[in-house]
Amino acid sequence: MKAEIIAVGTELLLGQIVNTNAQYLSQELAALGIDVYFQTVVGDNKERLKQAIRQAQERADVLVFSGGIGPTQDDLTKDAIAELLGRELRTDRPAMDKLTEFFADRGVEMTENNKRQALVIDGCAPLPNATGLAVGLALSDGEHHYIVLPGPPSELKPMFENEAKPWLLHQVLTEEMPLYSRILKFAGIGESTLEDKLIDLIDAQTDPTIAPYAKEGEVAIRLSTKAANIQEANNKLTALEVQIQSRLPEHMYASEDVPIEDTIVKMMADLGLTVSAAESCTGGMVMESLTTIPGSASMLKGGIVCYSNEMKEKMLNVPRDYLEGENAPGAVSREVAEVLAEQVRMIADTDFGLSVTGVAGPGYSERKPVGLVYIGIAERGGATEVFELRIKGNRDTVRKRSTKTLLYRLWRRLVEAEKQH
Amino acid sequence: MKAEIIAVGTELLLGQIVNTNAQYLSQELAALGIDVYFQTVVGDNKERLKQAIRQAQERADVLVFSGGIGPTQDDLTKDAIAELLGRELRTDRPAMDKLTEFFADRGVEMTENNKRQALVIDGCAPLPNATGLAVGLALSDGEHHYIVLPGPPSELKPMFENEAKPWLLHQVLTEEMPLYSRILKFAGIGESTLEDKLIDLIDAQTDPTIAPYAKEGEVAIRLSTKAANIQEANNKLTALEVQIQSRLPEHMYASEDVPIEDTIVKMMADLGLTVSAAESCTGGMVMESLTTIPGSASMLKGGIVCYSNEMKEKMLNVPRDYLEGENAPGAVSREVAEVLAEQVRMIADTDFGLSVTGVAGPGYSERKPVGLVYIGIAERGGATEVFELRIKGNRDTVRKRSTKTLLYRLWRRLVEAEKQH
Repeated sequence: MKAEIIAVGTELLLGQIVNTNAQYLSQELAALGIDVYFQTVVGDNKERLKQAIRQAQERADVLVFSGGIGPTQDDLTKDAIAELLGRELRTDRPAMDKLTEFFADRGVEMTENNKRQALVIDGCAPLPNATGLAVGLALSDGEHHYIVLPGPPSELKPMFENEAKPWLLHQVLTEEMPLYSRILKFAGIGESTLEDKLIDLIDAQTDPTIAPYAKEGEVAIRLSTKAANIQEANNKLTALEVQIQSRLPEHMYASEDVPIEDTIVKMMADLGLTVSAAESCTGGMVMESLTTIPGSASMLKGGIVCYSNEMKEKMLNVPRDYLEGENAPGAVSREVAEVLAEQVRMIADTDFGLSVTGVAGPGYSERKPVGLVYIGIAERGGATEVFELRIKGNRDTVRKRSTKTLLYRLWRRLVEAEKQH
Repeated sequence: MKAEIIAVGTELLLGQIVNTNAQYLSQELAALGIDVYFQTVVGDNKERLKQAIRQAQERADVLVFSGGIGPTQDDLTKDAIAELLGRELRTDRPAMDKLTEFFADRGVEMTENNKRQALVIDGCAPLPNATGLAVGLALSDGEHHYIVLPGPPSELKPMFENEAKPWLLHQVLTEEMPLYSRILKFAGIGESTLEDKLIDLIDAQTDPTIAPYAKEGEVAIRLSTKAANIQEANNKLTALEVQIQSRLPEHMYASEDVPIEDTIVKMMADLGLTVSAAESCTGGMVMESLTTIPGSASMLKGGIVCYSNEMKEKMLNVPRDYLEGENAPGAVSREVAEVLAEQVRMIADTDFGLSVTGVAGPGYSERKPVGLVYIGIAERGGATEVFELRIKGNRDTVRKRSTKTLLYRLWRRLVEAEKQH
């Protein structure tokens, strides 16, 4: 089964936005076992759209469209497909009711244009839009299948997940058995090393399948299996998950697609633990990343961004002779990382105290090279750990990697704390 | 002049990465006045690659390729084009020398595969790769022009900017006159409002041209003009820039593509001013964004992430009866924003003190709605300003918009400070 993804929109051709839908759809289709051999982007022009469709009909079984189903004159996706297939457009009643209600609620008159969003092609299965107004559709015609989705990712993703995917599974792949997936997340290990450690499982895979799961700045894999029901699926997925975890016990932090901050916040909330941080070169990045998680207020009290040596001294009692003088270790040192972690922990009265001090670059600092970073973790009634990092990369990389490594190390401490609970 | 962008790589079809090159190239080609009507993504398969090329030859004058020029067996872009054009591949001496040196430096043997990266098509102009090993190329054949670039954006962008663009201008667009661009950056105003205020200039544009310049989370426009030399170009660009600035004096913060943090850091360094921040709901985001800028150490001393009320009281002396009790204004209030800004300024002994306190969500806090945020700016020897924001959106949006608005307001204060200097 071959698919082609056709993204419609002149803003894509002008480079005004990045085509993230193509990446999302490709990943989802691959997980369903559908090969994507071509992706096409075409503008809001009916003739060129039809040209792209004809071309795709020659070389694919499933055509997945994103975009061009809004209210304006330039929204031509459904028209182009209908014309090529010799079918009529009709109004989908539920979609029209939703539109009418939307405008009535706002006391605004619905213009004619807007009604176009409720149009569907005769003979299709309308795909309701849970997060927007334009109705999608799925249609089989001859040897081809057409799925039409809205352009905005926040509308496309739920519609694909909840409407298009089941349709594909039942109508196209004629699956009696639904597809179940599980994402496994890893920290403190790179993609290549992870793959190395699992290479025999990856090479020998049958069911469930194992594939790298792409996500910016994260390391993850996706396990997929078809099963008659969720229990059966979970049994199969868990069997493989357990195998993988046993090889990487110090790196697999979650068996769902959550960032490590989420795992940390949940563990600390469960254990009733609190944390604070003293950050120098990361400038607040560590605390900011923990605070992206709702509920972090229960575990993160706050901390200090001690960007200058003056702040380190004044707010965190770092002795001046640690920072200045011929024989001083300097701000970027084990000694200072240790003091910062312990001091912020005491001042904020938290169970854990974190610290980061390093040379983010560009350019040396204290005659130390870019990428030299010390991260510290202090614990109430426990020992303070300090790690020396040597990070290759630019300022942004050094700060991000320091943050990720510190969070990884905190997670490891929490795993230990959990064992003693 | 029409172009088609062909991105080569199976990882794109599997959804393992997002096609950012297509967006970059589309934007650059549009600025050169070259229309892009189709973008195609094809895998590492020679037959399908040739199919995509033939298709593009029918409908475009310029074919721009990214990817498929690395050292592996799957890197087939140059081979596919050469075969279709009936041309041979030859080794580019400078590229080969560079490869040889790279491997010798590392004391590693260069494998045969690697030598493929120095291949170019007979009759082309090789495009040197400043940030990688694979040489690109530019070639005119019959009525078509072919530009072949490496896949990694860090290699593609410099090669396009420094090698491919001049080639296009001289060989294809046969421009005697180079194209000059200037990016104008705006803050504290949305894209639509900006467009409204400039609509007559946009509608009437001839030379220079005005176009929205897309950048994630930022508001910018690009002015472009062709001129015999840089002075002439600058005269034309500046004339239009001045018109635009005069309509939006409180919003245009730079006439180059820099983030507002960069402008703030430079202004404060020039004026010898320092700043600190007390952040609650943003969790460190404000300070973190300022510290992305090299040189920020001269103006940002640091600050406090007072995520909990305890930290607000303990570290920033916020009176308890501001935070707790029946008639207390609460943590999310003008009063507390004012105290936080003034206290952190005093404690850190900086010229400016910033504060943010708000309800990021999800869910009400202190019976206040999500999106209610107070931002404060205190100044040494000056008045403290507090702004009330009502932000629509999720947790991430509330935090990001609060940060952006606070930085915008700080910039406005610095503009005032500059006038009195």
